[in-house]
Amino acid sequence: MAFTLPAYQPPDFARPPLPDAPVARFAPVLESGVAPENYHATTIFPEYYHLGKGHWVLLQNSRMDGVVVQAPEGSLLVKEFHHLQAGEQVALGRGENGEEGIYVHTEAFAQAPPVSEKFAFRTRLTRETSFSIDYDELYELLSYEKANGFILWVLGPAAVFDRDSRNALVSLIHQGYVHGLLAGNALAVHDLEGALFQTALGQEIYCKRPSPLGHYHHLDALNLVRRAGSMAKAMETGLIRNGVMHALWQQQLPYVLAGSIRDDGPLPEVITDVLWAQDAMRALTSRATTVIAVASQLHSIAAGNLIPGYRVLPAGQVRPVYFYVVDMSEFAAEKLTNRGSLAARSILTNAQDFLVILERGLSRR
Amino acid sequence: MAFTLPAYQPPDFARPPLPDAPVARFAPVLESGVAPENYHATTIFPEYYHLGKGHWVLLQNSRMDGVVVQAPEGSLLVKEFHHLQAGEQVALGRGENGEEGIYVHTEAFAQAPPVSEKFAFRTRLTRETSFSIDYDELYELLSYEKANGFILWVLGPAAVFDRDSRNALVSLIHQGYVHGLLAGNALAVHDLEGALFQTALGQEIYCKRPSPLGHYHHLDALNLVRRAGSMAKAMETGLIRNGVMHALWQQQLPYVLAGSIRDDGPLPEVITDVLWAQDAMRALTSRATTVIAVASQLHSIAAGNLIPGYRVLPAGQVRPVYFYVVDMSEFAAEKLTNRGSLAARSILTNAQDFLVILERGLSRR
Amino acid sequence: MAFTLPAYQPPDFARPPLPDAPVARFAPVLESGVAPENYHATTIFPEYYHLGKGHWVLLQNSRMDGVVVQAPEGSLLVKEFHHLQAGEQVALGRGENGEEGIYVHTEAFAQAPPVSEKFAFRTRLTRETSFSIDYDELYELLSYEKANGFILWVLGPAAVFDRDSRNALVSLIHQGYVHGLLAGNALAVHDLEGALFQTALGQEIYCKRPSPLGHYHHLDALNLVRRAGSMAKAMETGLIRNGVMHALWQQQLPYVLAGSIRDDGPLPEVITDVLWAQDAMRALTSRATTVIAVASQLHSIAAGNLIPGYRVLPAGQVRPVYFYVVDMSEFAAEKLTNRGSLAARSILTNAQDFLVILERGLSRR
Amino acid sequence: MAFTLPAYQPPDFARPPLPDAPVARFAPVLESGVAPENYHATTIFPEYYHLGKGHWVLLQNSRMDGVVVQAPEGSLLVKEFHHLQAGEQVALGRGENGEEGIYVHTEAFAQAPPVSEKFAFRTRLTRETSFSIDYDELYELLSYEKANGFILWVLGPAAVFDRDSRNALVSLIHQGYVHGLLAGNALAVHDLEGALFQTALGQEIYCKRPSPLGHYHHLDALNLVRRAGSMAKAMETGLIRNGVMHALWQQQLPYVLAGSIRDDGPLPEVITDVLWAQDAMRALTSRATTVIAVASQLHSIAAGNLIPGYRVLPAGQVRPVYFYVVDMSEFAAEKLTNRGSLAARSILTNAQDFLVILERGLSRR
Repeated sequence: MAFTLPAYQPPDFARPPLPDAPVARFAPVLESGVAPENYHATTIFPEYYHLGKGHWVLLQNSRMDGVVVQAPEGSLLVKEFHHLQAGEQVALGRGENGEEGIYVHTEAFAQAPPVSEKFAFRTRLTRETSFSIDYDELYELLSYEKANGFILWVLGPAAVFDRDSRNALVSLIHQGYVHGLLAGNALAVHDLEGALFQTALGQEIYCKRPSPLGHYHHLDALNLVRRAGSMAKAMETGLIRNGVMHALWQQQLPYVLAGSIRDDGPLPEVITDVLWAQDAMRALTSRATTVIAVASQLHSIAAGNLIPGYRVLPAGQVRPVYFYVVDMSEFAAEKLTNRGSLAARSILTNAQDFLVILERGLSRR
Repeated sequence: MAFTLPAYQPPDFARPPLPDAPVARFAPVLESGVAPENYHATTIFPEYYHLGKGHWVLLQNSRMDGVVVQAPEGSLLVKEFHHLQAGEQVALGRGENGEEGIYVHTEAFAQAPPVSEKFAFRTRLTRETSFSIDYDELYELLSYEKANGFILWVLGPAAVFDRDSRNALVSLIHQGYVHGLLAGNALAVHDLEGALFQTALGQEIYCKRPSPLGHYHHLDALNLVRRAGSMAKAMETGLIRNGVMHALWQQQLPYVLAGSIRDDGPLPEVITDVLWAQDAMRALTSRATTVIAVASQLHSIAAGNLIPGYRVLPAGQVRPVYFYVVDMSEFAAEKLTNRGSLAARSILTNAQDFLVILERGLSRR
Repeated sequence: MAFTLPAYQPPDFARPPLPDAPVARFAPVLESGVAPENYHATTIFPEYYHLGKGHWVLLQNSRMDGVVVQAPEGSLLVKEFHHLQAGEQVALGRGENGEEGIYVHTEAFAQAPPVSEKFAFRTRLTRETSFSIDYDELYELLSYEKANGFILWVLGPAAVFDRDSRNALVSLIHQGYVHGLLAGNALAVHDLEGALFQTALGQEIYCKRPSPLGHYHHLDALNLVRRAGSMAKAMETGLIRNGVMHALWQQQLPYVLAGSIRDDGPLPEVITDVLWAQDAMRALTSRATTVIAVASQLHSIAAGNLIPGYRVLPAGQVRPVYFYVVDMSEFAAEKLTNRGSLAARSILTNAQDFLVILERGLSRR
Repeated sequence: MAFTLPAYQPPDFARPPLPDAPVARFAPVLESGVAPENYHATTIFPEYYHLGKGHWVLLQNSRMDGVVVQAPEGSLLVKEFHHLQAGEQVALGRGENGEEGIYVHTEAFAQAPPVSEKFAFRTRLTRETSFSIDYDELYELLSYEKANGFILWVLGPAAVFDRDSRNALVSLIHQGYVHGLLAGNALAVHDLEGALFQTALGQEIYCKRPSPLGHYHHLDALNLVRRAGSMAKAMETGLIRNGVMHALWQQQLPYVLAGSIRDDGPLPEVITDVLWAQDAMRALTSRATTVIAVASQLHSIAAGNLIPGYRVLPAGQVRPVYFYVVDMSEFAAEKLTNRGSLAARSILTNAQDFLVILERGLSRR
């Protein structure tokens, strides 16, 4: 059965007390980068702002923990605190039920109510949870999104530490199941190391043999690409001939490599200022309709912060954003839940096996 | 490239000091179940006992932490302490290099020496290690063992908590890649629960929905099979029509279900005395040439205790025993290593994905 | 502020529909060890059975997943399935709200309702949860239980792998904070190994040095005690002079060592049949008012199965049973939750540090 | 017994083949940020460079994976690749035994050889390893370092999620056991949140109650401090009156808060460019003699990259740098080992308990 988007159920603004809700209030930014007292912070849910006379406006490109600024022409923008400019008007109020003109809509997409019993087993997701259905749903979802959405991947370096999973990623890219990538320096470096030396951190990505002087490989990869000037040039000149970054380059797909203090090098394409990196990431997350975050706590949480649970399509339709987290530990999965990204679905397994299974399932379609 | 058994390299008993080694000494058991002082305990390695005049005898069916008893006719048996009978002759001595007539042979099978450098990355196996080659080697190994060996599986209940992995196991059984099974009550109960109710601990094994009154399902499965008298009868009567235990029954394959204090029921086939269960397990481990232990610390460690790193084939050929541990945590993998089962290979991933990938890889051959 | 028992809030049997509830039905056991169809299985909650004319009887010594048998004189007993005798009368019905004469009372002890918001952080307990209050509450609770309750410990072997934590346990025993122990062969063996050789599995419990031929130590400990005939005799003769088992012996405290298929030896006191071990464990769990389960999944889950969330004191007062699980992984903590032991409180930390902190905190009082 | 520095054992340059070693070669940087081919990359070990006539020069302020630049006056500097300036002379050669004029000295500090046996248990460090001695050694070491060294802490936010561990850190700072701190935005934000609201991510740091609208707390903390202009000003004005950052401010201790893409805010003191943050971190790591990294993979690995295994004191004495990693998972501990930071010692436990125990142990001295 093919995937169909669940219907969006807008709030009923005719249902009390919403008809009596006041107009949302705004206050000016007095100092750039500082919000006025009692600012409202955004959640992952669709949020509506009462701008008067029963006119409720839905935030278009939201994120978690942003602030809402009213542009001069009246539209609402979600901004990070550090982007606030003196004089901008910021929405106020922390009530979520319209009492301050803001309605946080948590019941946006229909879902079957859970079975409720006094006594039940298995209320928690763990490594022992069944995941077959998640794969099957992903096949359906990604087939739909390939044509109709924007599939954003978030990858930790372990995704390219293994030959088969690296190849699976390359195949997914060429098949059209990857529309953008968020990662760090390490993912790219070790992917390039794989292209140049068939190793990751000095260990062969298939045979697992430690390579002689293998601890130079990632440094040599960095130095060679830095000498070339960019990854793109390293690919144009044939220095790099395979791998994930090469496939993205071939398919001309956008990516953001965000810097971290762990980085060697870094690669020329890495954005070393984390705030600029966040801006670049948000340029991609604002297009994403499905996110698949694999084996990276840092990038998963960063992406989770930037992505709301819904997306307003150009024609005005509201649809959910799907967010999958693939990790080995319950701790990592719960970390995202504990950060408020409640809508994330977790698959607890090894990144390599996940990628191999997913690619095989999608390739058979 | 097909799998070939590595050649066994017997010790060179002509190399000093072995020609001068004394004859192994034995002392009688004075009280049943108690070894004489200075008893020798077996390891996982081939061990040779000097019985006189340069005649060195290799232990045939060894295990870890057993004692060596000389049968009246001269053959050597490895026994558990609690099986010692008063009057039996037990081998003495803790030297491993022949100084007491016992030689522990750690270099039995040829291996390439590791690369050694002053400074190296990735000396430890973790979830980020590459595992592609392990799958490929397993395909080769299991294809060989299917015809020539004895593949013993050790399974935790998580293996049947998921529809696809449960089906993968059934397929592996019918394809001939399973020659025996060690497990506990829970693996069987939840497999039967899956057959009767399509749930595991009350949760659907595909849709993950909690079933109404699902916490009764495993108890009902137990009660129904206890009423039937045995699993075999429950299958003969058509009560149980699918699953891992059903496939074993169809193929008439041996298994041991060992009891634990966690058990409900238990199933009639469960051996509730752990010492009897060990005996039954050892009857299978003594035939095993490859062991695949999935998602069960308790049973993996128990099996690891019972299985040496080699097997003497009927024609006298000595071959290695392969032992794979599949688990989600480095801790579990290292637990086996820390118990002395040095030869175990670990694959760190979810049991379900492992089984699905393995079955697909083997089915394509 | 000292600990006080929370008040028990019995069900209001005058509140509809309970006054109209039918009498609980019973059906005979036709075959020993098999429950009649539609049997009722017990939960961890207080359960009341309507025996007629508004007379509701509370189960006295319940457990999870047991069945309820009416004794000839009318009292109700909770039994394991395998203990059912032909002819016994077993309670029927799976409704929990009186509709079949059985009322499962989930709101037995007053608790503040949780804050409920549309959007919240940190809904899950992880290693990053604050645990200071848990220690402080444990100090209060254990001080109370020392005089008024029965503190049952469940220990994995890691508790005695470290000198300071082993000493902390000994101190807790002598101070009166331990009234009984559930463990396996390994806990006792490595504790005795510590007494005899100052090692655990061959590694010094303070210096961490591997001991020469240290892999013999636990076997020697087993063999020496087996030769002595029992741990008690080994202590009477001065062979064992310190440690956890020695302290229990000095204080004449009850314990159950349950066998598992991992066991070497085993020690003479180990109960090798797991069903007999369960019976012995239940003799202790039926007295427990607080359980502290440290670093043992197997024994924690087994104990969790046997212990309800309440205890009826001799004078008829109903009080909660407190159940703490101390483990390093969220997976282990959630395993208990997923088995229905909803009332367990988890502290995610190393067993050694937990024991050291707890002992210091209690010793300062 | 008080801590004493182990003696440094310099290489014996009179031992062949070192007397015949060639002079180390250097090649110019042709393009800034790019090393010449065959550059030498530094390790964590003391490295000596042969500058002619048997004159071997030891690197003074090394790090892992840096390059060695000869300053015009002849001294050797270790630089990151991106800091290389065109024209600088970079050391060449990958041989580590003098064959290219570079000697990597791995046996710098005396250590007892490990026991070597054919068969041994417990070769791996896990959560079940004994850690009592590590605490005792830390008490000795930190007492020494308090007066004679530079104790650098690396902290993840979990360190301040709990009241007692946050207080323990404050106490350690005031007692003189903290000389500098490396952390991220989150550690500081949640510490300030604790000062302002007694919560961390909205949950009370003692009672664990979720606070009403608690998901605003960290944002409010950020906004208030951003309004104040800096943490220092927020402390001067009395807005922030307690906690880790406050104690550092009181003691005028240096710290680096490095930005990451997860950051909200961020705080004014956060260095958002990761390369600048690395420089600032290295200014501290180059002074460190002991590092204690708690509950932060990102910062632990970053610090591990920047810190060699030795320090050359002003008087020329060479001493080891001690590096402790405290984490809950074997995976995290091994990650550092797999990055080449072989000298790190791991303590597997909860950050909170570690800090509480350490503080109590040091306070008693």
